[in-house]
Amino acid sequence: MAVNGEALNNSSRFEHQLEPILELLRRQKLVENLAQRQAQSRAELLETLVHRQHEVELRRKLKILNAADAAYLLDMLTLDQRWLVWSMLEEHVAAEAMLEMSEAVLTSIVEETDSNRLLKLLIHLDADELSEIAEFLPADVLASAKAQLEAAEQQWLEASLSYPEDSVGSLMSRDSFLVSPNQSLDEVIAAFRAMEEVPEQMDKLFVVQKPRHLVGVLPLTALLRHPGDERVNKVMQPNPVTFSADEDAEDAAHAFERYDLISAPVVDENRRVIGRLTVETMMDYLREHHEGAALAKEGLSARTDLFGPVMSGARARWLWLCINLATAFLATRFIALFEQTIISLVALATLMPIVASVGGNTGNQTIALFVRGLAMDHINRDNLRFLVMKELLISVINGALWGCLLGGVAFLLYGNPGISVVMAVATLLNLIIAAAAGIFTPLALAKSGRDPAMGASVVLTFVTDSMGFFIFLGLATWWLI
Amino acid sequence: MAVNGEALNNSSRFEHQLEPILELLRRQKLVENLAQRQAQSRAELLETLVHRQHEVELRRKLKILNAADAAYLLDMLTLDQRWLVWSMLEEHVAAEAMLEMSEAVLTSIVEETDSNRLLKLLIHLDADELSEIAEFLPADVLASAKAQLEAAEQQWLEASLSYPEDSVGSLMSRDSFLVSPNQSLDEVIAAFRAMEEVPEQMDKLFVVQKPRHLVGVLPLTALLRHPGDERVNKVMQPNPVTFSADEDAEDAAHAFERYDLISAPVVDENRRVIGRLTVETMMDYLREHHEGAALAKEGLSARTDLFGPVMSGARARWLWLCINLATAFLATRFIALFEQTIISLVALATLMPIVASVGGNTGNQTIALFVRGLAMDHINRDNLRFLVMKELLISVINGALWGCLLGGVAFLLYGNPGISVVMAVATLLNLIIAAAAGIFTPLALAKSGRDPAMGASVVLTFVTDSMGFFIFLGLATWWLI
Repeated sequence: MAVNGEALNNSSRFEHQLEPILELLRRQKLVENLAQRQAQSRAELLETLVHRQHEVELRRKLKILNAADAAYLLDMLTLDQRWLVWSMLEEHVAAEAMLEMSEAVLTSIVEETDSNRLLKLLIHLDADELSEIAEFLPADVLASAKAQLEAAEQQWLEASLSYPEDSVGSLMSRDSFLVSPNQSLDEVIAAFRAMEEVPEQMDKLFVVQKPRHLVGVLPLTALLRHPGDERVNKVMQPNPVTFSADEDAEDAAHAFERYDLISAPVVDENRRVIGRLTVETMMDYLREHHEGAALAKEGLSARTDLFGPVMSGARARWLWLCINLATAFLATRFIALFEQTIISLVALATLMPIVASVGGNTGNQTIALFVRGLAMDHINRDNLRFLVMKELLISVINGALWGCLLGGVAFLLYGNPGISVVMAVATLLNLIIAAAAGIFTPLALAKSGRDPAMGASVVLTFVTDSMGFFIFLGLATWWLI
Repeated sequence: MAVNGEALNNSSRFEHQLEPILELLRRQKLVENLAQRQAQSRAELLETLVHRQHEVELRRKLKILNAADAAYLLDMLTLDQRWLVWSMLEEHVAAEAMLEMSEAVLTSIVEETDSNRLLKLLIHLDADELSEIAEFLPADVLASAKAQLEAAEQQWLEASLSYPEDSVGSLMSRDSFLVSPNQSLDEVIAAFRAMEEVPEQMDKLFVVQKPRHLVGVLPLTALLRHPGDERVNKVMQPNPVTFSADEDAEDAAHAFERYDLISAPVVDENRRVIGRLTVETMMDYLREHHEGAALAKEGLSARTDLFGPVMSGARARWLWLCINLATAFLATRFIALFEQTIISLVALATLMPIVASVGGNTGNQTIALFVRGLAMDHINRDNLRFLVMKELLISVINGALWGCLLGGVAFLLYGNPGISVVMAVATLLNLIIAAAAGIFTPLALAKSGRDPAMGASVVLTFVTDSMGFFIFLGLATWWLI
């Protein structure tokens, strides 16, 4: 997305100059409430005039916003403020802001903006930009917006939308600049100057032999540093890092990070250039991915609008509540098996949640380590056996150690050596089970092609709660009753 | 860090060509075990020869690795393999790999490498690079490495280390390229060609009036697209995005993302250029930050070595175990208050963990939403009141709804209407408490300058467990006994 240096406010960044706009929005709210009533008194007439003044001032301030800043502002406003600002933005700014705002705000804005306005805005976007937000648009609006594009752009949009969501293909852009190995640098510079607009984040040109077969890349710095009569193939880097359209976007983002790339060619199986990836896209992808994962772990969607209506906020949590109630009910059925035991030794009711809870907590540590290991490619079939053995050994050591401690504390509280032994053994066993569940849940999720973090914690907590209750009360029934 | 295109293997990325190296390492292991015994038989002598051959092959393959790939490889190896590869790397590759490897592996490698070798490697790093890994180095090694630098570099290193860990100052680099507004583009290009080496990720030059006062930036693309006799001040962008050394690195990283920056000047209060930020550094920072936060949430350090020794792995979890046992013990003390109640109505023991658990789960949803809102600057004093009211209202709606459902299920199980009512009311109250704790814990942590996600979940679970037990058993004692 184009960010125009000139459009930025003087001397620093937007977030440091936000206050005047928020202040105007605060007053806007106040006088709007007044204006809703009939302007009966002179005082209220005056208020309406002040309101006008504020509105003019607000429009003036919003007019100079660029798209990134507009999106940043929209993301932090309540629904009524969001609408006011959204309606005041210039068309091309509003259009580009759609690429930058959070998924939640985009979802709500698309829902509430009528199709005609939406279509007018989308004229300002090219095929790459349209494909970025396509999944948020109603099918008919997307179809009409596509019809507004040139034929080549239409084709690109179709191709782009045909790739799976988290693939490189869905993120690559069309705007590669191709040069031939036999051109002189002067010829390249002439072609470069002839371009209408330089694509964003263009740090290198792709060197191809007809038709589009990649043989190297030519960094702009090389173009600047070598004499103009030099040939491209003398100056280019011959073996650049490349990507393929069907590979996982997260892997690609990690490669960008590792190789410190700004842009890179996407090639097909014959090494023909089919698109370009930029660090900007990769950074956005990673942020959305991380954010989405953090919310998904708690059963929420990244599209949950912080400022949305209360009922949709309540509804957004029902699935998670339902899953949790179901697993909690199931886990406590293990307690129900031992109600007689509890009646004869009520201290067990007090101590059993501790065994369950300590299992859940250490299991989640194991999950965190394995999820990181999987994400960073640190785990493979060579070292998996070692890692599993290590994790189980740790759980035995810690289970023995902290089980004894827990047993000791239980003895101090209840003076019953039997309870202490049960407590110690149950803790040890539940920690071993927690480690096993903490290893195998993320591995199984990853193996099935899912995000290893998502849902792992629910499964784990169910296992450690059930087994915590079952082992503790079971041992107590067997040994003490 | 420099990644040399030529050093990359032909046609694709390192992670796709990893298998031969891993295979050699696997064999290495096997024949080393054999070689440890005396080579008595001809067969074993042959094995030793094969071993030699493998070693030569391995060295050959490691020799062409660049630093990023070497770090990637080291991150996934077990301790013995890690040592073998580390000892075989060329000095300058090993040195630069230290900048790229995970904190956990860096910690272990610094610990085990003797000071002399370490010092020899560090000669290959400049002040910026040294400051990146300074916190991992022993004080005496750092001091000696510093002494090897030129005077200006030494000063820079000192200044860099004087900034707090998560500030822009600690991440900025020294390698700005400054031009004057009155120079012609041809003069700039001449100066650009005269540089010994172009700094990484240099997409723009900084335009300054003496002494170092920033007046604009000159993108390389502008340099290429305008005639050579044009003056810099006609072509430059006058109001670039800037950063200050004392601001938070995470805010800076978000601004990089928002404005799609590749590099940006860091200025002091008089707008004098004091350093440069690059997208590469910001991306690394964000990754480490996210990774560290995910582990810290489970009470683990980012320096936890997945492949480290078992005992240190066990020890790494003691603090968390200790905290969790303490809070679990405290929370269950609320159960102990009501043991008489449980004896007379044992179903309560089975149902009480459900009330506690559903509170913990919904409270964690609230934390996830508020942590994201705080990280993305979506929450401010204008909308906080709205958000708090909304969240509490959601908890009342969901508490009433799911409380009734839970009460219904409890009635089906136990046929006791009293228990059902207690269950419903306790669920409602605990969800309200969970929402309140889920809002105020991250806000309080953020207000005190801490990471709002870290520790929030522990506090929340303690509150929802204690209150879940207390309210449920308290109401039961009051109404049913």
